[in-house]
Amino acid sequence: MATKKINTIGVITSGGDAPGMNAALRAVVRAASYHGLNVKGVRLGYEGLITNDVVSLGPRSVSNIINRGGTILKTARSDEFRTVEGRKKAFENVQKNGIDALVVIGGDGSFTGAKLFHEEHGIPVIGVPGTIDNDIFGTDYTIGYDTALNTAVDAIDKIRDTAQSHNRVFFVEVMGRDAGFIALNSGIAAGAQDILIPEKRDEIDEMFNALDRGEQTGKISSIIVVAEGEELGNIYDLAKFTKIKYPTYDIRVTVLGHIQRGGTPSCADRVLASRLGIAAVEGLLAGKSNVMAGVRSNKIVYTPIEEAIQKHNEIDHELIRVSEILAR
Amino acid sequence: MATKKINTIGVITSGGDAPGMNAALRAVVRAASYHGLNVKGVRLGYEGLITNDVVSLGPRSVSNIINRGGTILKTARSDEFRTVEGRKKAFENVQKNGIDALVVIGGDGSFTGAKLFHEEHGIPVIGVPGTIDNDIFGTDYTIGYDTALNTAVDAIDKIRDTAQSHNRVFFVEVMGRDAGFIALNSGIAAGAQDILIPEKRDEIDEMFNALDRGEQTGKISSIIVVAEGEELGNIYDLAKFTKIKYPTYDIRVTVLGHIQRGGTPSCADRVLASRLGIAAVEGLLAGKSNVMAGVRSNKIVYTPIEEAIQKHNEIDHELIRVSEILAR
Amino acid sequence: MATKKINTIGVITSGGDAPGMNAALRAVVRAASYHGLNVKGVRLGYEGLITNDVVSLGPRSVSNIINRGGTILKTARSDEFRTVEGRKKAFENVQKNGIDALVVIGGDGSFTGAKLFHEEHGIPVIGVPGTIDNDIFGTDYTIGYDTALNTAVDAIDKIRDTAQSHNRVFFVEVMGRDAGFIALNSGIAAGAQDILIPEKRDEIDEMFNALDRGEQTGKISSIIVVAEGEELGNIYDLAKFTKIKYPTYDIRVTVLGHIQRGGTPSCADRVLASRLGIAAVEGLLAGKSNVMAGVRSNKIVYTPIEEAIQKHNEIDHELIRVSEILAR
Amino acid sequence: MATKKINTIGVITSGGDAPGMNAALRAVVRAASYHGLNVKGVRLGYEGLITNDVVSLGPRSVSNIINRGGTILKTARSDEFRTVEGRKKAFENVQKNGIDALVVIGGDGSFTGAKLFHEEHGIPVIGVPGTIDNDIFGTDYTIGYDTALNTAVDAIDKIRDTAQSHNRVFFVEVMGRDAGFIALNSGIAAGAQDILIPEKRDEIDEMFNALDRGEQTGKISSIIVVAEGEELGNIYDLAKFTKIKYPTYDIRVTVLGHIQRGGTPSCADRVLASRLGIAAVEGLLAGKSNVMAGVRSNKIVYTPIEEAIQKHNEIDHELIRVSEILAR
Repeated sequence: MATKKINTIGVITSGGDAPGMNAALRAVVRAASYHGLNVKGVRLGYEGLITNDVVSLGPRSVSNIINRGGTILKTARSDEFRTVEGRKKAFENVQKNGIDALVVIGGDGSFTGAKLFHEEHGIPVIGVPGTIDNDIFGTDYTIGYDTALNTAVDAIDKIRDTAQSHNRVFFVEVMGRDAGFIALNSGIAAGAQDILIPEKRDEIDEMFNALDRGEQTGKISSIIVVAEGEELGNIYDLAKFTKIKYPTYDIRVTVLGHIQRGGTPSCADRVLASRLGIAAVEGLLAGKSNVMAGVRSNKIVYTPIEEAIQKHNEIDHELIRVSEILAR
Repeated sequence: MATKKINTIGVITSGGDAPGMNAALRAVVRAASYHGLNVKGVRLGYEGLITNDVVSLGPRSVSNIINRGGTILKTARSDEFRTVEGRKKAFENVQKNGIDALVVIGGDGSFTGAKLFHEEHGIPVIGVPGTIDNDIFGTDYTIGYDTALNTAVDAIDKIRDTAQSHNRVFFVEVMGRDAGFIALNSGIAAGAQDILIPEKRDEIDEMFNALDRGEQTGKISSIIVVAEGEELGNIYDLAKFTKIKYPTYDIRVTVLGHIQRGGTPSCADRVLASRLGIAAVEGLLAGKSNVMAGVRSNKIVYTPIEEAIQKHNEIDHELIRVSEILAR
Repeated sequence: MATKKINTIGVITSGGDAPGMNAALRAVVRAASYHGLNVKGVRLGYEGLITNDVVSLGPRSVSNIINRGGTILKTARSDEFRTVEGRKKAFENVQKNGIDALVVIGGDGSFTGAKLFHEEHGIPVIGVPGTIDNDIFGTDYTIGYDTALNTAVDAIDKIRDTAQSHNRVFFVEVMGRDAGFIALNSGIAAGAQDILIPEKRDEIDEMFNALDRGEQTGKISSIIVVAEGEELGNIYDLAKFTKIKYPTYDIRVTVLGHIQRGGTPSCADRVLASRLGIAAVEGLLAGKSNVMAGVRSNKIVYTPIEEAIQKHNEIDHELIRVSEILAR
Repeated sequence: MATKKINTIGVITSGGDAPGMNAALRAVVRAASYHGLNVKGVRLGYEGLITNDVVSLGPRSVSNIINRGGTILKTARSDEFRTVEGRKKAFENVQKNGIDALVVIGGDGSFTGAKLFHEEHGIPVIGVPGTIDNDIFGTDYTIGYDTALNTAVDAIDKIRDTAQSHNRVFFVEVMGRDAGFIALNSGIAAGAQDILIPEKRDEIDEMFNALDRGEQTGKISSIIVVAEGEELGNIYDLAKFTKIKYPTYDIRVTVLGHIQRGGTPSCADRVLASRLGIAAVEGLLAGKSNVMAGVRSNKIVYTPIEEAIQKHNEIDHELIRVSEILAR
């Protein structure tokens, strides 16, 4: 396919917001400026393409956002963009705005939209993985994941202060509906006695064993980290079962919730976002399309967007072992 | 009453833990050392008096704890200490350990125990207000309150990143079962659109009015801060009512929970704790008893412990007005 | 003096920036809106009055700035405003912009300008104390002070990690050219072995005594906090003298510098700034002028601006004693 | 070589301290316990081997240290260990304590000592890379590096608040005597206008060009990040040269200094330290010696310690390009 020369790039942040999306946006805008391209920012995700909520962005438009959580373009779900008609309307606005190619910063749901949009309307698209869940194939890390880990660990450190002061057992739920990355890493870092994640077939007895082991070595307060998507049961139910088994334990539950999505991005997330934003622009200029820019073994790689959607990063089983060895 | 000369001070942290309790403990130990006294630390609150879980503390025992959350002495509820017999047993251990006077770092529940202990056994006691709730009469600030405020504001700032990115309405529950201090101050500091506290007779219509006012001035995301003890209703019910009234709103709920109790104490809390710990020791040496050391208008004051228990700090109504003026 | 009705308020941030200035600005703008007034923001301090760098501000202009350090209006020194002619030119721009009264957020240098401006041109002015130094008379706390304290303590905590790991003596310089507030409070909170401030006539021998006392009680690493304006000597010289006296000590120097001026304001600073911004607007509406809004014993008070300039908050000598008792 | 069965492992933290050393120590102790081994902790680095400052460590000895900066074993330089006689004396103490193998957590200087000790006395040694500088060959990341980056970025963010408020140019020195890793990554993450590192042959004219480019795109405040080891000149000289060339600029200098060594380790550093601590113990059990445990492309690898000492991680030149593209 003879690619049309790219003069103007459109950029979208889509799906759940993640710390570092602004840093990625800044990198897209400045890399485009560096290469003599124009940038149009689409607000509110794909919805903004449908409602034509589009603004011009220059290097100064993205000053002082590298350290801000969330996304200044905002993000939203768009039911209409899921329809053929919606995407047609969106493409009309793409043309009206003279957008020649699209950078989509988001997760796999957003990439599915990008892929259909590309297939139906031929517009070059490149995805940038922005999600705290780290579950996207084709990159070792997603933008926002490192920050979310630090937020979770900082919160669990605080909870540990109070757990220790009271000899309590705390169940802490962290984000990760389909993937245990946040739970496993934050659990290791926070010194959890057990970590329950969707990827392990956790058994209630193993959790009880972990508590018993802790008790045997003299541990008098414990933290159990539970991923949101854990299938063994709801965190409140887990706490209840545990109370039945250990009636003398003082057991508490905390759900960390949305604080994990916000906050100033970490250094690693800002650098990753900066690299991937540039890689997206330079990928488009090199004629790439329907791919996602990622980092593997610290090198920029481009993965077919279909693969990024269908495959998933897998939990490193060495880390599960690490968590078990250290919980003593 | 001719007071016995004090050679050894016992110190207890009791009730819910609060950041800065360790700083207060350190100050008690070092002030005692400065004045040539010995210190015995009682572990696990009053329970440790009953079980005789008592350790000697010198200046080096409290090195490097000024910046640590929680309490190295730990804290616990003690049902037994609520009985006359329990307190008798506790006093036997007080005598066994040669403790001549007691410093109790905790909240009003702990002070009630201290008062009874003093009345029944004549031992001099001084209270130090350590609780995040700031609801204790006789001091402008309690130890831990400033840190809890900063923790709550930091968390709400993160939530605001995601609220803005999605044009969402967030209900955030902060601690404060009987008192709205944390909700009111963190709500003002976090730019909340409305703040619901036990001290105001909140009406659901006023909350809806606040949301309407925000919408009229172009606000497209809002945060409603709710104190734990708010009587208008459970935070999840409030969210549901709001969804019924505003079906297009994207509404979320976050309960901050126990992270508010932990964490490195703020500078203000460390300084306050340091002052009050010294004041407790020097108050005992000056023959004071059955009082609480506090700070008012930046001066050390001693308040009869009964008054500290029965009266309560009141929310400053100017601050409620401040919150309403700024929510536009 | 019959005051002209106030329709439009001008607002300026001036002098060194301080965390919370944006929160104060937001409060001025929203309080004005609440009372049906217009607001003009003057950029770059008094310089912006001379160059007519003035923008209209509404409630949405100050959205999402309550948590941002620095000042969105920026600040600058203006030599021209120190001249009669400069202030005349500034007043012409005040009239051009229809500004009826002025709120000046800054320190005592900025207040001196405000006072002259008022005296020469009759325009009502109210000062809001925004400076990290806490040395302004008429308020218990200045905006930015609490944040600067937490920044300093957080930095010294980090230094202490490395001091302890190496058994080192660290000299740490904190801000405060004329006042030891930051040094004294951050030094107590960080557990400093000695604190050198302009208000004490420090003697090198006392510092050596403090180090000796630490050594006698088994302390093997120490932190000495030094205020920028300490007259005993430059921090590097102090370190050198100490090395001569204690040749085996591993001595290091860190100057915290400008990190103390920036950062997300603390909860206390945001609430203080919010209160004072409203108080400034409502003071003007109540006919007050040539005063500074402050908080004393937790109540809003207005102090003649001349008094705020000439007098100074004094270090609490109880705190010096606290620092000495705890350094053991 | 027939390896003696390992029953007791000695562990040392040596050289400059780094955040995460405690997490690595905890992992060594718990992995040893998991495998039925004893652990002896050597205090104050190699010096503690010479003075026989050795303690037994069990799983509870390392409770609640995973989140603490510095090293509870402390660290020190040992001139005596650099001599053959010193190492002989050290080995006598190794034998006295029944230590069969040694884990050394530190940087390349510490590894040189370990290598000589192994060569002269045959004791199995494994190195764990603990240093903020990230310049050790054989691992993608060293323990402490990620935390130091976040500390530097957090500090520069604060400086940027004040830089922007005043339209100032700030020169900020970060650590890295031989390597520009911290400068390059923190500079990108903090949005620096130019970054000066030992690995680039920086020219003063290029720095001036970067400032000019910023000015042309409307930038009115800038941050220049300078690595400690930059050869173009001392940071104060750089500031002076710049002032001569741009006399109207308001130029300031901040040296971040030792705050970069301390602080609570980041999640990534705690997980890395946990993995490497276990890898060291299991490497010894698998008969490895004279190697360093590291992580490459997220897998545990063992590199001959000689190689780890002699080779160095190289700056990724893609990142230099990233920094230049974004500085506009």
